[in-house]
Amino acid sequence: MKIAVLGTGTVGETIGSKLVELGHSIMMGSRIATNEKAKTFVTKHNGKANAGTFSDAAAFGEIIFNCTSGVGTLDALKLAGENNLNGKIIIDISNPLDFSKGMPPSLSIVNTNSLGEEIQKTFPATKVVKALNTMWCGLMVNPGLINGGDHNTFIAGNDPDAKLKVKEILKSFGWIEKNILDLGDITKARGLEMYLPLWLSIYGATSNGAFNIKLVK
Amino acid sequence: MKIAVLGTGTVGETIGSKLVELGHSIMMGSRIATNEKAKTFVTKHNGKANAGTFSDAAAFGEIIFNCTSGVGTLDALKLAGENNLNGKIIIDISNPLDFSKGMPPSLSIVNTNSLGEEIQKTFPATKVVKALNTMWCGLMVNPGLINGGDHNTFIAGNDPDAKLKVKEILKSFGWIEKNILDLGDITKARGLEMYLPLWLSIYGATSNGAFNIKLVK
Repeated sequence: MKIAVLGTGTVGETIGSKLVELGHSIMMGSRIATNEKAKTFVTKHNGKANAGTFSDAAAFGEIIFNCTSGVGTLDALKLAGENNLNGKIIIDISNPLDFSKGMPPSLSIVNTNSLGEEIQKTFPATKVVKALNTMWCGLMVNPGLINGGDHNTFIAGNDPDAKLKVKEILKSFGWIEKNILDLGDITKARGLEMYLPLWLSIYGATSNGAFNIKLVK
Repeated sequence: MKIAVLGTGTVGETIGSKLVELGHSIMMGSRIATNEKAKTFVTKHNGKANAGTFSDAAAFGEIIFNCTSGVGTLDALKLAGENNLNGKIIIDISNPLDFSKGMPPSLSIVNTNSLGEEIQKTFPATKVVKALNTMWCGLMVNPGLINGGDHNTFIAGNDPDAKLKVKEILKSFGWIEKNILDLGDITKARGLEMYLPLWLSIYGATSNGAFNIKLVK
């Protein structure tokens, strides 16, 4: 499948590499087409990945992975261009963490709104699915790293078919179907994003980011 | 030990009953001394529990359990009286959930502040420990109900000795020591309270409140 990965940070690099490994055609999107990290990524995955502007990547991809930093996501998607995004699934794995006032970060959108919802409202003809934002990126694409892969991930979005497609992608990443919990519509992104301060506290208390939560009942 | 349980809802009743069962002397505190639920509680635990105003209960207790609804907590503690609270541990298990604008509730204090912190700031001579607010009250006092008791609870507060005492109480409730994670100072109440929207979403998606999270690594 042709997939756009917007954002060239560690998360974008991790997701992009996994997608290449799975045989997908990738275009990394960034603010400028000459982004150094994107060039390194393309060289590393010679022939299986390309790079361009947010707009180039969004035009290329049948599915869009949003791996930009949350506070820059809406600007990045505007640069990607509504026409290049319309009708497509946006898998939003970002968190609206604002580090501008020091640590710990606060959330720039919170409580009665979320970044996932804001993307959906700003680009109403896209199908936004919030996913994977609740863990370190190494686990997103390799859940088997811990506990034999037996822990949880969540999805939220308004379009049932889009969520089914995202579920298939998550399964291709190694997620066990029973551990992918569909929380409902895109308003459920609120809880998924507001979990981040607890994630950061647990990380701070344990000095280990390679953890996740498993629901027990 | 003499313990005040502020709040006569399901949470207060559950915590109070467990404390009586463990041999503690309990006073339930409520806005009015003639509160019907408190009277029922006292009758049920004949001779081992008492009831009074928030102020009566706070004066009685060596330790205070805050089981009031989060949006009413600060008012309840003001009625309890600073002089009756000073020097004491307040175990804050409440969540500042605001249902006044319908479902889902929002948080009345959030992001760069939390109810736990606000209690600590309002009553600086108390020792606030946030605990147990991340689950259904049935599990708070009976973690063995699910997964053989192997799942996590968190504490946060500024006073190390107070946290040690709360840890002992949690262990007496059935919590396994390794599963009680100290997240740090009272600012970590932010993450614990901001987890609630995710808790509510999971509850909504599974129709089962008797769940908790287990950290896996």
